[in-house]
Amino acid sequence: MRTITIKPAAITHNLAQVKKLAPKSKVLAMVKANAYGHGVAAVLPALQNGEQQADGIGIATLMEALEARQLGWHKTIGLIEGAFTKDEWQLAIQHDISCVIHHEPQLIWALENTPPATSATRVVWLKYNTGMNRLGFNDQTLIPAAKRLHEAGYQLILTTHFANADDQNHPLNTIQIQRFNDMLHILRETISSDIKGSLCNSAGIVNFPEHHHDWVRPGIMLYGSTPVIDKSAHDLDLQPAMEFSAQIIALQTVNAGDGIGYGSRWTAAQNTKTALVSIGYGDGYPRVIDNNAYVLVIDAKNYQRYPCAVIGRVAMDMIVIDVSAVPESAALNSKVILWGDAPHVDEVAAHAGTISYELLCRLSARPNRKMAES
Amino acid sequence: MRTITIKPAAITHNLAQVKKLAPKSKVLAMVKANAYGHGVAAVLPALQNGEQQADGIGIATLMEALEARQLGWHKTIGLIEGAFTKDEWQLAIQHDISCVIHHEPQLIWALENTPPATSATRVVWLKYNTGMNRLGFNDQTLIPAAKRLHEAGYQLILTTHFANADDQNHPLNTIQIQRFNDMLHILRETISSDIKGSLCNSAGIVNFPEHHHDWVRPGIMLYGSTPVIDKSAHDLDLQPAMEFSAQIIALQTVNAGDGIGYGSRWTAAQNTKTALVSIGYGDGYPRVIDNNAYVLVIDAKNYQRYPCAVIGRVAMDMIVIDVSAVPESAALNSKVILWGDAPHVDEVAAHAGTISYELLCRLSARPNRKMAES
Repeated sequence: MRTITIKPAAITHNLAQVKKLAPKSKVLAMVKANAYGHGVAAVLPALQNGEQQADGIGIATLMEALEARQLGWHKTIGLIEGAFTKDEWQLAIQHDISCVIHHEPQLIWALENTPPATSATRVVWLKYNTGMNRLGFNDQTLIPAAKRLHEAGYQLILTTHFANADDQNHPLNTIQIQRFNDMLHILRETISSDIKGSLCNSAGIVNFPEHHHDWVRPGIMLYGSTPVIDKSAHDLDLQPAMEFSAQIIALQTVNAGDGIGYGSRWTAAQNTKTALVSIGYGDGYPRVIDNNAYVLVIDAKNYQRYPCAVIGRVAMDMIVIDVSAVPESAALNSKVILWGDAPHVDEVAAHAGTISYELLCRLSARPNRKMAES
Repeated sequence: MRTITIKPAAITHNLAQVKKLAPKSKVLAMVKANAYGHGVAAVLPALQNGEQQADGIGIATLMEALEARQLGWHKTIGLIEGAFTKDEWQLAIQHDISCVIHHEPQLIWALENTPPATSATRVVWLKYNTGMNRLGFNDQTLIPAAKRLHEAGYQLILTTHFANADDQNHPLNTIQIQRFNDMLHILRETISSDIKGSLCNSAGIVNFPEHHHDWVRPGIMLYGSTPVIDKSAHDLDLQPAMEFSAQIIALQTVNAGDGIGYGSRWTAAQNTKTALVSIGYGDGYPRVIDNNAYVLVIDAKNYQRYPCAVIGRVAMDMIVIDVSAVPESAALNSKVILWGDAPHVDEVAAHAGTISYELLCRLSARPNRKMAES
């Protein structure tokens, strides 16, 4: 059975790791893109289940925000690209959603439609472009925008986004941190000492402990993947929150010289025992992977685990694996782990030339979804 | 708005193209993986809407089959990997699903649990491994399996799957065709002249018109992508059945020398007008694309279309495009086509180092889905 198993306990654990790293900061837990593919409904309870709780959640679209409210999330919701239209700004007010303001039109909607004093929409995340060059006000436009919002009664959180925080030594980090800290200092001096700051995503939380400010915004690390290039999830004591699995549905022996699958991309060097696994890119397993990609076959009788290479092209509905090392008795119907504790999704992503974030987000609706018994 | 628009009229048109190419064959329309991401509920009516109708549908999992029955599909359903368990075989009988039989356990389930004579499950697709080396009986095991099934009252369709039909000149094609034709001849001579044959997927339909046999199994071409390497969808008069679109949510000018996005992967050679588009890999747009990938910005006032390069790394929720050539008045809130009539999803796939099938299947649940008015 094609199955995605979510482990809420892992998310609660990973949140505790964030709090250990950033004990003085509030946590805006990123649950955009359906909680990085884990399912918002599964993740929200896990963010309120431990001794350490998230103070808010971050999402990318108003639809996602409304869904979270429907699911009973009463704390802060940060809409990280802000309202896309004036109508969305009005809806944000109705549902107490706190918006990023990153360009002039959003500033005008906010100034022309001020929410009630008690509304959470009175808190705005003012985006400063420090070097990502996607969103945000620049050095010239930010201070006037901050002044006007403050005068209209808004509480401000200055925010920005790192471009290269995964690589601690990238020279742009120092520049972005300096710009952010300088601007926050200016705003506090010239507008209000109450202005808050939010600089760090997961990578910043790990790499820049001196610069956590008032709010940190962990995303990928909550789900158990590493946010940095020089430390693994294991190094950071993060637990993967998703297991993606399937099963062996047929066995075969291919002869030396036979090609397997589309493009006859893999040729057997010797007679080889292969197994067909009921998973493919139609489920979200990546189509293009290198020759070192592997899965784990679990023997149901004794929980023995066998790493097995994925051979040939990944197809829409199936993959072929090399089961030469798996006992015949264990093979048919065995559970196959595509990612989970091992292989870690970070490893699979490396074999697919991408990052775990993409694999987690681009799962299709076909696999069954369930919660782990913990 | 992140939007997937399905065009049923395009599917009906593409089905008519299949029938033009294979006028004497029945059509098993492949709707596995949620109709290649298009949505089974949207696609089934389109397969029965034109002068030419599909004779059956092919799916990969029993769940997909049951869903199609629930949606009111009364004709043939072919389960292309067959039942995974004996219980699934029983369910297949209950719902009149016609199964592939590709290995010994499935053969035994069928022999031990024969459906009623009137049941559609009496028709089985007996899979012959002619060189794909994933599924199927071999030269030694196929004939005895066919005999036993025939004696138990089953009607047989001999089937196999091409490994390289997209490349007309690949030497394996001739071998697979020859093996298939020879085996079908033997079965008809020695077991029953009523045994049917099904050899061709989309690529086979286009490339091997002499070998269409009783059933063809079009997949990707129904959705408007080319199945072959040397002809485009346009060459084959296929119409894309999906438009994937978003909108511009902010404008910016970046200065010469500035990097954009994660990894600062793209650096502006000169001051450049850029736009932020509300789409990312969290929706299913591929994260890794080459420098020639582009989108189409539509001016809402006059429907003028502007190709715009995607610059910098695709992120989870947004991309940046170069709008230097787009008039200022047209840019903000404009609709942006990621794939559709242009760029064709086949082009986007080439820029992403993959095939359109994967892009269509790996869409997430986040975009809104709607039907085209036509």
